[in-house]
Amino acid sequence: MDLHGGNIYIFSKEKQKQILDYSSNINPFGVPKKFEELAKKNFNILTAYPDINYTELREKIALYNKVKKENVIVGNGATEILFLYMRALKPKKVLLFAPCFAEYKRALDTVNSEIEYFELKEEENFILNIDRFVEKIKNNNYELVLLCNPNNPTGKFIELSKIEKIIEEKNIKFFIDEAFIEFVEDNEKNTAILLKSKNIFVMRALTKFFAIPGLRLGYGLSFDKDIIDKMNEEKEPWSINSFANLAGLTMLDDKEYIEKTEAWIKEEKRFFYEELNKFQNIKAYKTEVNFILVKLFNISSENLREKMIEKNILIRDASNFKFLDKSFIRIAIKDRESNLKVLKTLSNLVEYRG
Amino acid sequence: MDLHGGNIYIFSKEKQKQILDYSSNINPFGVPKKFEELAKKNFNILTAYPDINYTELREKIALYNKVKKENVIVGNGATEILFLYMRALKPKKVLLFAPCFAEYKRALDTVNSEIEYFELKEEENFILNIDRFVEKIKNNNYELVLLCNPNNPTGKFIELSKIEKIIEEKNIKFFIDEAFIEFVEDNEKNTAILLKSKNIFVMRALTKFFAIPGLRLGYGLSFDKDIIDKMNEEKEPWSINSFANLAGLTMLDDKEYIEKTEAWIKEEKRFFYEELNKFQNIKAYKTEVNFILVKLFNISSENLREKMIEKNILIRDASNFKFLDKSFIRIAIKDRESNLKVLKTLSNLVEYRG
Repeated sequence: MDLHGGNIYIFSKEKQKQILDYSSNINPFGVPKKFEELAKKNFNILTAYPDINYTELREKIALYNKVKKENVIVGNGATEILFLYMRALKPKKVLLFAPCFAEYKRALDTVNSEIEYFELKEEENFILNIDRFVEKIKNNNYELVLLCNPNNPTGKFIELSKIEKIIEEKNIKFFIDEAFIEFVEDNEKNTAILLKSKNIFVMRALTKFFAIPGLRLGYGLSFDKDIIDKMNEEKEPWSINSFANLAGLTMLDDKEYIEKTEAWIKEEKRFFYEELNKFQNIKAYKTEVNFILVKLFNISSENLREKMIEKNILIRDASNFKFLDKSFIRIAIKDRESNLKVLKTLSNLVEYRG
Repeated sequence: MDLHGGNIYIFSKEKQKQILDYSSNINPFGVPKKFEELAKKNFNILTAYPDINYTELREKIALYNKVKKENVIVGNGATEILFLYMRALKPKKVLLFAPCFAEYKRALDTVNSEIEYFELKEEENFILNIDRFVEKIKNNNYELVLLCNPNNPTGKFIELSKIEKIIEEKNIKFFIDEAFIEFVEDNEKNTAILLKSKNIFVMRALTKFFAIPGLRLGYGLSFDKDIIDKMNEEKEPWSINSFANLAGLTMLDDKEYIEKTEAWIKEEKRFFYEELNKFQNIKAYKTEVNFILVKLFNISSENLREKMIEKNILIRDASNFKFLDKSFIRIAIKDRESNLKVLKTLSNLVEYRG
């Protein structure tokens, strides 16, 4: 079989080991072993179509989130959920805060929504100013407000008590992207689904926390039957593959994996943040999740990215996020050994020059 | 781990063995071993996103079909290709022949197309009457004509010389579903892509021939840059999972699997057709593929289906296909041993009663 060629995504295991990918925010523990074993043992499930209704999968997700299976819609990654929601709602005018994940705009563009941005300010450390945000919502006729929570790339998380203030406006729908929420401490007490509001749609992914971006599994949670029905009407059948289905059925129960991840991220986000801020020529923003936004004082994001690649480390040049510029990068948080390598490389590149 | 419950799709291997699924037209050789080994060895590819452009995959598919990678669009099963095409084209008035695969209607309904049907007649053995079909196309203002070739559930195949006559009308687009074409003898000489017409869009799937309906991989081929561009604009990113990507890269080269499948289906479709037609109380329609349409003379499709289930064989009640009725079933063609079991069970149920 001809398995050579330039596909670093698949074949170059050697290269994948060489390059530390700090641009992608994936749990460094890798694919949960329990799932891997089960999938290998049941490889022949691929010869059958998945259950077109994904009933057992939705039941498992419902149980995990303490809702009913009727409140759950599953997707080919969170991406399918995002695009489906927008196709179902077709909101005329939408408010986003920014900097935030760029895919929202692409999904909104497919249904020609008008987008307004609320700027998260650098001088406020990119923390959402709730009062001004609520005021903007009240004084405009938005059909939809989209919140990325925790927010990518800033790493900030809006607690539930503040979300409650934001969603007070009753005639507006709120789409809350919680793709990274499992990395936040006490996340079970802070998910917006606890508010049980018909106005809220919560999006989740298994991609990041369970390290399976290649497998494609996300879901949406809502108490609004109309939007779930509309999304199901628009939805293509069998969009979640049988292994992703199996992943959902096994991973949410994988307490061992979940607990070791929680212990790691709690310690490592503190450590990485503190170590980064020991450098003179950068500022790291406090993060609630597994990546960290960093401002550079004496080198451009592009320049630093290139120099890091030479050292076999890939970071995210964050300059193309709205309201950011060439002084910002985003760095993933991984295992201690790799983090130390990144810190050392960074130190060589950004320190002793100013 | 809690892996019990009613999900026959995943866990009940025992039950899957017990029940012979003749309702689903999947290659009985199962998942190609070369792919299985490679996937198991490279399980950690799941921790990375697939290549968002699927460049290597499209190159491989292009090579296999003797076109350029720009002519290829890949999808989460053929289903995504079908729905994307319809969303991109939004055809006002569409002609389908029927009986045919029901999913076309669902995809067309999402874009509110008006559908007209051309009836494949029982007295013509469900073979498309080209002259009458071409006449209908000429005398109407269809934007799109959709051909299922080979046709599900009839098993009939329209040769290339006849397709050429159909597509003579220059202002109409033709969507040709070739999901089962690899089961047809001399299919390489009869695919519509050989016509290199900008009016033709060909849909393919790896699902049936390579026995991976659970993995989700299909693709479209077209020389019409506009439609490919429009589909790519509408397309959600990363919709094909990393294992499906890997499957595409390895299976199309798997000569051993392809050749043994071709040898099996050539022999077995002849055998099954001849054996079925030895029965007095049914008529089997000659098939070019791995399933066969059967008319029942002394029992209803529903009744027979239930009686077969009691014998642990699942067949497709074909009565809900347009223009068919309760006297029609569709049966898959599998390995000789299983086929003999089905023939024996059928014989007990449909013979010696009339």
